[in-house]
Formats: sequence, C-alpha cells, structure tokens
Amino acid sequence: MSQSDRFLRACRQQPVDATPVWLMRQAGRYMAEYRTLRQKYSILELIKTPELATEVTMQPINAFNLDAAIIFADILTILEGLGLGLDFVRGEGPIIHNPVRSAADIEALTVRPPEETLGFTLEAIKLTRRELAGKVPLIGFSGAPFTLASYAIEGGSSRNYITAKSLMYGQPQSWHKMMDKFAVAIGQYLRAQAEAGAQALQLFDSWVGALSPADYREFVLPHSQKAIEIATAGSDVPLIHFGTGTAGMLPLLKEAGGSVIGVDWRLDMADAVQILGDDVALQGNLDPVVLFAPVKEIQRQAALVLDSVSGRDGHIFNLGHGILQHTPVEHVAALVDFVHEYSARL
Amino acid sequence: MSQSDRFLRACRQQPVDATPVWLMRQAGRYMAEYRTLRQKYSILELIKTPELATEVTMQPINAFNLDAAIIFADILTILEGLGLGLDFVRGEGPIIHNPVRSAADIEALTVRPPEETLGFTLEAIKLTRRELAGKVPLIGFSGAPFTLASYAIEGGSSRNYITAKSLMYGQPQSWHKMMDKFAVAIGQYLRAQAEAGAQALQLFDSWVGALSPADYREFVLPHSQKAIEIATAGSDVPLIHFGTGTAGMLPLLKEAGGSVIGVDWRLDMADAVQILGDDVALQGNLDPVVLFAPVKEIQRQAALVLDSVSGRDGHIFNLGHGILQHTPVEHVAALVDFVHEYSARL
Repeated sequence: MSQSDRFLRACRQQPVDATPVWLMRQAGRYMAEYRTLRQKYSILELIKTPELATEVTMQPINAFNLDAAIIFADILTILEGLGLGLDFVRGEGPIIHNPVRSAADIEALTVRPPEETLGFTLEAIKLTRRELAGKVPLIGFSGAPFTLASYAIEGGSSRNYITAKSLMYGQPQSWHKMMDKFAVAIGQYLRAQAEAGAQALQLFDSWVGALSPADYREFVLPHSQKAIEIATAGSDVPLIHFGTGTAGMLPLLKEAGGSVIGVDWRLDMADAVQILGDDVALQGNLDPVVLFAPVKEIQRQAALVLDSVSGRDGHIFNLGHGILQHTPVEHVAALVDFVHEYSARL
Repeated sequence: MSQSDRFLRACRQQPVDATPVWLMRQAGRYMAEYRTLRQKYSILELIKTPELATEVTMQPINAFNLDAAIIFADILTILEGLGLGLDFVRGEGPIIHNPVRSAADIEALTVRPPEETLGFTLEAIKLTRRELAGKVPLIGFSGAPFTLASYAIEGGSSRNYITAKSLMYGQPQSWHKMMDKFAVAIGQYLRAQAEAGAQALQLFDSWVGALSPADYREFVLPHSQKAIEIATAGSDVPLIHFGTGTAGMLPLLKEAGGSVIGVDWRLDMADAVQILGDDVALQGNLDPVVLFAPVKEIQRQAALVLDSVSGRDGHIFNLGHGILQHTPVEHVAALVDFVHEYSARL
C-alpha cells in the first residue's frame, strides 16, 4: 500500500497501513511561505489566481508528510456567485456588503453554473492534480447551507446568530427558499469540483453547532441532504460532512449524508463511534490548541485519539477545527509523523 | 402547593403543580429598569452596593411571574479577592489588569474568607431575602474553576483559550495549584452565600465546553468536585451545575457533582435524560435567541422542551444560556406564563 491510497481507503472504511492525517486549513497563516505570499496578494487574489491557489495548496504538502491536499479556496466565494459582495477586512474577517435580510433579497439570489462563477477554483483543482502527480489525493470543499446562510444574513462572523435565527424563526418560508438555493449552488459546486479532479469532498457546516437539534432537523437537515445528494449522485466520491459543536446532533448529521463524519474535540471519539455506528467513517478530533503544547503532550493527546478508535477501520486523523494562526510549524511536523508511527504500531 | 415551593421541589426531583422557570441573567440590560440604573452606576457599583444589588435582583421578580430570584452579582468578583484587578470596559466586557501567566502569579493568588472579600454580595443576599419575603427562593452563584481560570489567564473573554490551555498543557503542576486555590475560594464563597440565605446555588462553568472530555477529566473535574463538596458539605442546599457546549461531557459534569445539571440548547432534553439517568434534576434548555422569534414560535419551542421531559420529576425550565441584551420584554413575560400554563396541563 502506498501513501497515496491511505486517505481514500480510510474514507471507504478499508484497512490502511497507518492512519491518514491532514489538517483543516493546513495551508495558511501559520506557515512562513504563506505569509510571504500574502504580503503580495490578498486572500481573494490567491484564491482567484489558479497558479497561486495551486502554489498555496502545495505548501503544506511540501512541508509535511500529509496524506491529503485540500484545494486552497474559501467557503464564502460561492456567495459572490449568488450575487453577494464579499470582502476580507484585516482584523475583522469576512464582510458581506449586501447581507440577505428580506424576502426580496432572497428572491434576488441567483444560482448560476459553478463554471461561470467559481471557474478559478475548478481550474486550480486541475492544476493542483497535475502538480500532485498522484502523491496524495486532493480534497474539494464547500460551505454548507446553514454556515453560508449565517454569513449571508449576519453580514460576517457572529456570536449569537440573532439576525439569522430571527429570519429562520420569523419567516420560515423565505428561509427555506433561501436554503434551497444554497443547497443547489453548493451541490453543483461540489459536483463540479469532483469532475475537475477532486478525489474527495468536504462539506463545512462549521457553525451548525449554534443550533438546537430540533432546529437543525426542521430548518437545515433537508437542505444539507439535498446539497450532498446533488454533489454525489451517481458517483462514488467520498464526502466528509463536518461541523463543530455537534456532539448533540451527530445522528442528524449522519442522516443528512456523507461517507465520513467530521467530529470536533468536544466529544470523545469512542463516544462518536458509539453514537454513529459502524457504517460511516470518522474524521478528527484533536483540539487545535493542543498544537501549542510541548511535543510530548501533543503526542500523548494524539495517542488518546488514536487509541479511542483503534481496531475500527475508517479513521482519518485531523484537528477538530482549522489549524490556528500562531501554531508552531515544527509541532505540525511532529504531529503528522507521530500519527503515522503510532498508528502503524497499533 | 404555593409558587414559592416549585423551584426547590423541582431541584429535589419532587412533583410540582407546574414547571418552575427562571432565566439566567434575568436581571440585565434587556430591562428598561436596569438600563436606567446603569446610567447612574457602573456594574461594579451595582454589585458592591447591597441595596442596589437587591433592587436589581428584584426587577425581574416584580416584572414577571418567575419562580426563583438570583442574586445580582458577577462570576468574576471573586477574582478581585484573590488579588486580580477587575474592570468592565464598555464594548469589551471584563478585563483583568494583571492576568495570571506564571508560577509566581499563581503563588501570589491568596484565598481569603469570602466575608472579607465578597461581603457586599453576602449582605445583598440577606437584604434580598427580606425583600422577597418568601415569595420565591433566592439563588446564589459562583463561576466554576475552569471558567474563572480562563478569564484569569486570558485577561478577558477569549475565542480559543490558547493562553489558558497552553498553561494547562505546558505547566500542569502550576495549573493544578491554581485550580485548587480557585476550588477552595469558590467552595467557601458558595457556602457563605447559602449561610447568608441563598436557598440554592448555581456553579457557572460557562466556557467548559471549550475542552475535550479527556482534558475536562484530567485538568478540571477534580477541582469542580472539590468546590462543590466544600459548598454543600453537611447541608442539603441544591446545587445547579451548569455549562454550555457540554453535550459530549455530561456524565463527567454529573460526576463532578450537583443535584441539578444545567444543559444548553445544543442537546435535546430527552437525550440529556437518557445520558444522565434518573438520579439528578435537569435545568434548561431553550435557545436564548428563540426569545427574538414571534410569540407563537416561542410557545412552540418551549412546548418542545417541556414535552421532551414530561412525566419526569425534576425539571427547571430555563434558557440554555443567559438572556440576550435586546430580548423583547413582552416575549419574556409570554414565555414565563406559557411554561406555567402548558406544564400544568401536561
């Protein structure tokens, strides 16, 4: 078995020689190579120039012994294609200039083919596949309907999602109309990424943990399900369905779909196995802050995660959320190597 | 059965005529009466003047048909007694001027008798008990060791708790020494509140959901347990153990102690019952943002919560976290009345 197989075999719950590992946001500000590029280009310039997106995607692959690459892009670029104005403001994160607030705003959202609106990322996927030359697989991704809705309505990051949930509770018909548009746009975008060469897909429902399980079932689940169905219909591309704060709603995430369920660190992996059963693979779940600890402690914590799922096929090691800005690069290298060595011994 | 009994009976898992309801942060900025006082006094002035703290505590009791009062105070005043400088800065929240960063800082933390350092809150409890005149019981409270540690180390609110967790992972002996001091101070403070007249206690571990269950067990549980033991030793005062984001660690919170476990909205109450078993009461768990919805939707959501625990003694209705700033006052009144009417019919 070569390293190039590990990740996709684990997605399909097949035996592997060592647990595959990749890290959410593995291309990013913690790497000097990335910060150097960011001095010359904005985030959106990096994403929208396929050669640069490819270069950034390859940075962690060249630096660490990772088992998968993930295309450098952002979950919010899809909103531009729907008609929303997106910017990244230093220190403030993403800003939507014309947030969705009314039925008329929702009416105005227009789903267009991803080739028209997100061609730069599809092109970057083709370039990166050539660059990777089969070394490791490439993951494509999209934001999920709720997480995109939260940004589209709030106009940026949010603490309590009062505006988004007020629309959800107060104008449920408009909410569902909007979520259906997101579902179609997301499904088509993910599908196009797979057709462009992405060998696995991840649906990021990063903020879905803000919802009660009952609200998730009623206001979100059908739309995530539709996005996943469109993305994967008639294909065997693995799809990782990820969220944070989902310990109380994992069965619902599974019901919505995905061949792999991504879990954050707020749940013991052994409990996740118990809750989710045997017919789905798992991804996770080290607390990203553990990477700030001494290497001995990083190894102890990674071993806890690996031990908790040992003997069960279908585990992809990852952090429970994206890698953080000031993470020491040498700790990332130590983690990746430890996961391989320790899991090969198990 | 009179209204004055409902809350304490539910804490003890005894049958009640209607489900008792109170709301975390029920005295606060969403009330015009509170905002009027805040134009004249700072938060710390309100807390440290027993007559004013009593007045604020009574505001929601006079406005709504609530089944318990909670003394107006703040989880962070205990840090002042330990030697940390506390301020509330408009728009930024709490600030610790000399955050704990080193073993020497931890050495310098000094546990002094709550009568010396927090006498104003103990006095406010005595005054409020007289003011309440038996109408409803009065709850005392404290922050829990982890939540206090997060503020003490980070120096204020935090998104990822990198500084706090780095100390926890990197200097575990110092961490445990600090947490032990917090546990003793918290336990003594809660005990003193009960002795001053608080008829129930709540331990707020608001940010404990930032931890993995394994980290909670190793770095936090023994200290929360010690605080609860000191608070309740030899007394039958009910203690509510509350945290948010705890869906994956509820059995550990129960193990740490408390006669009532507080649950946020990220877990279905029926699942909480399943996880926690029959020998503990439950408090929760409406999403605070639901109070921004139309009254019909508030009632539908409150009914979902009540239905999910119907037939089981020992439920205190509450939000899953504190009431939010711009919550419409008339929605609060509608919720409180609905909980009584609907649960009396169940």
